[in-house]
Amino acid sequence: MSGGLGAQQDREKELEVLQFWKVRVESELDQVVAFWTKNSHDPEHGGFLTCLGHDGEVYDDLKYVWLQGRQVWMYCHLYRKFERFRQPELLDAAKAGGEFLLRCARVAPPEQKCAFTLTRDGRPVKVQRTIFSECFYTMAMDALWKVTGDTRYQREATEMMDQIVHWVREDPSGLGRPQLAGTPAAESMAVPMMLLSLVAQLGDEDEVLAGRYAELGDWCAQKILQHVQRDGRAVLENVSEDGQELPGCLGRHQNPGHALEAGWFLLQYASRKGDPELQAYVIEKFLLQPFNSGWDPNYGGLFYFQDADGLCPTQLEWNMKLWWPHCEAMIAFLMGYKDSGNPALLRLFKKVAKYAFLRFRDPKQGEWFGYLNREGQVALTIKGGPFKGCFHVPRCLAMCEEMLGTLVSNHA
Amino acid sequence: MSGGLGAQQDREKELEVLQFWKVRVESELDQVVAFWTKNSHDPEHGGFLTCLGHDGEVYDDLKYVWLQGRQVWMYCHLYRKFERFRQPELLDAAKAGGEFLLRCARVAPPEQKCAFTLTRDGRPVKVQRTIFSECFYTMAMDALWKVTGDTRYQREATEMMDQIVHWVREDPSGLGRPQLAGTPAAESMAVPMMLLSLVAQLGDEDEVLAGRYAELGDWCAQKILQHVQRDGRAVLENVSEDGQELPGCLGRHQNPGHALEAGWFLLQYASRKGDPELQAYVIEKFLLQPFNSGWDPNYGGLFYFQDADGLCPTQLEWNMKLWWPHCEAMIAFLMGYKDSGNPALLRLFKKVAKYAFLRFRDPKQGEWFGYLNREGQVALTIKGGPFKGCFHVPRCLAMCEEMLGTLVSNHA
Repeated sequence: MSGGLGAQQDREKELEVLQFWKVRVESELDQVVAFWTKNSHDPEHGGFLTCLGHDGEVYDDLKYVWLQGRQVWMYCHLYRKFERFRQPELLDAAKAGGEFLLRCARVAPPEQKCAFTLTRDGRPVKVQRTIFSECFYTMAMDALWKVTGDTRYQREATEMMDQIVHWVREDPSGLGRPQLAGTPAAESMAVPMMLLSLVAQLGDEDEVLAGRYAELGDWCAQKILQHVQRDGRAVLENVSEDGQELPGCLGRHQNPGHALEAGWFLLQYASRKGDPELQAYVIEKFLLQPFNSGWDPNYGGLFYFQDADGLCPTQLEWNMKLWWPHCEAMIAFLMGYKDSGNPALLRLFKKVAKYAFLRFRDPKQGEWFGYLNREGQVALTIKGGPFKGCFHVPRCLAMCEEMLGTLVSNHA
Repeated sequence: MSGGLGAQQDREKELEVLQFWKVRVESELDQVVAFWTKNSHDPEHGGFLTCLGHDGEVYDDLKYVWLQGRQVWMYCHLYRKFERFRQPELLDAAKAGGEFLLRCARVAPPEQKCAFTLTRDGRPVKVQRTIFSECFYTMAMDALWKVTGDTRYQREATEMMDQIVHWVREDPSGLGRPQLAGTPAAESMAVPMMLLSLVAQLGDEDEVLAGRYAELGDWCAQKILQHVQRDGRAVLENVSEDGQELPGCLGRHQNPGHALEAGWFLLQYASRKGDPELQAYVIEKFLLQPFNSGWDPNYGGLFYFQDADGLCPTQLEWNMKLWWPHCEAMIAFLMGYKDSGNPALLRLFKKVAKYAFLRFRDPKQGEWFGYLNREGQVALTIKGGPFKGCFHVPRCLAMCEEMLGTLVSNHA
């Protein structure tokens, strides 16, 4: 029957796409990891220099705690999950990064609050009144525990995690934010997203912690889902405490890449729960809708910020194309395809991956450029900086390589 | 003699340029002021709504204290210095803005610290740990005093000024910045610049205050001059307390528009002092050099940020063209020409003014766009926002109109 033949041809085409991208992603991951191992290690103090020019040269030696924690996590993940990255060099650098964090991240030990920026030798330069430095610290410590079995790291991870949960769910006063009469009680989607990813990290291959944080995971998922607003037509970055839209720019603010990232966090959650209804909802609301409204019809690429009423955002960089939303979109669409089998999602993965490899990738010096103008030309030639380290690109490539491997095997 | 004839022809050409721009600037000022009086007044609470779209529509009703203070100052300045702006509507709006600030700017009265953002009805939303809200508050109060003669405003201005000077020169602890072991003791050029402009404002037509703040003015000028670094080849935004270059991106950071603004503050200071040597130095270091290195050779316009080593800045918006550096450059070059008579500076005024009128001006709806991409296309369609209000454009036009008037008279 021609229908059967058509379906088989479609499946063969899908397999071709999967195989092509598996090879491409695998070799790209090697080059990206090589860029960071070659250029970013600090043999003197431990940790990582992430302010790197297009050729890997260090242009500033400040150390950003988010990026320290993320690189430790990334190296541990590669070491643990990929045969070819089981290299002592990676593990040693991850441990040196973890020890640097243990020694220097806290601003005033034994207080748990961590710095945002440190000098190269570990003195605090800047503190943010948020939970994110502490979250990436936790992510690093849990990954080190999983790869070394050293219980010091595990204790650090769970103690910091408990502190973060206390700040978020019980009492934020330790973060040092002033209480002002006019500040709206806004909930940023970043907070439950970050916590949900920590729940997944800590519970990975650990039944005890998975159980311990199960209720927290449910709470995070519910909080994230509250950001679907306007009768299901938009994901908004900030909502009120009771899940209503906030007035003004704050309420209308959208970040398509962030919605897509939340999407794959929720897809993982739906898988853990075995909840196909949630999966379908997430694909619709957090993958397809943000992509459809966030993809630039003129030049391609995802806008960085948008306004839900289509007004002009006030952020100067709103129409730039940043690397990380495209990394998140690649993960989200491939995961959506893997979980649902919907070939439209594979086509979207391919569309985003083609754009990313064409525009962000630097075949000459390795790693990806991070910041393009609206038209897709490189606007900043840096490979690393205050917010770009060894994380989004290799995490995307590693996760895509794993998913593509599974999909190719299943197709065969 | 042909030399004499040539010189006369040159002078006639200069006069043509001056007359042409005087007419243009005058009519543009009318349109810009009309945009703000039509769209930004808040009759209910006083003060100004500055988040305005391209057509003047309000897209957010948050009130930014910098912009409240600046608009009060601007209206008072226009009322006081221009016959055609001696309109009760302007004065009433300035007074209502001043009363709004008196009532709501302080976060916890009688403490002097002011908010950065307020709700429309005046409740504090956000506080910055800097002096600038308080500086624009002072500027507004002094301008109101000068135009109304109401001593309440004068007392407010001088009390806040004394508080600011205390924070800057004696004890910054009241600003609430944490003391961290790794934070470099950096001095931002913005602080002495801001104070020098307040010294000029408070001392304008006031012998007593001019005398009281004379030493402060000298101190500010010296502090600003410390930012000329690298054997006089670069103005750096941040230097150490003892006037040395700081390491890393912070030390190499440049802002050509800010250097040009500092330039005309210093030219005014040199005029007050009657110091032609300083005038020549300032024209060279703060006008010509920042312009030569900061003007985009490919697309025209001043870059927003640069790195003194020519590396890529880490700010995403570094290569955008913002309205205010062009406003500052117009003032600086016209003032430099007025003070020195050097026709090269008039040519530079014309070059910048042509770019600004072509690219930023909106002949359809009034006011100027604020944010262009590198190529000079409008990237944000807003006319006002968190950092753009009724200030840089009308201040530039008003000052240029006054200077062009003087120059035309002198030529005649």
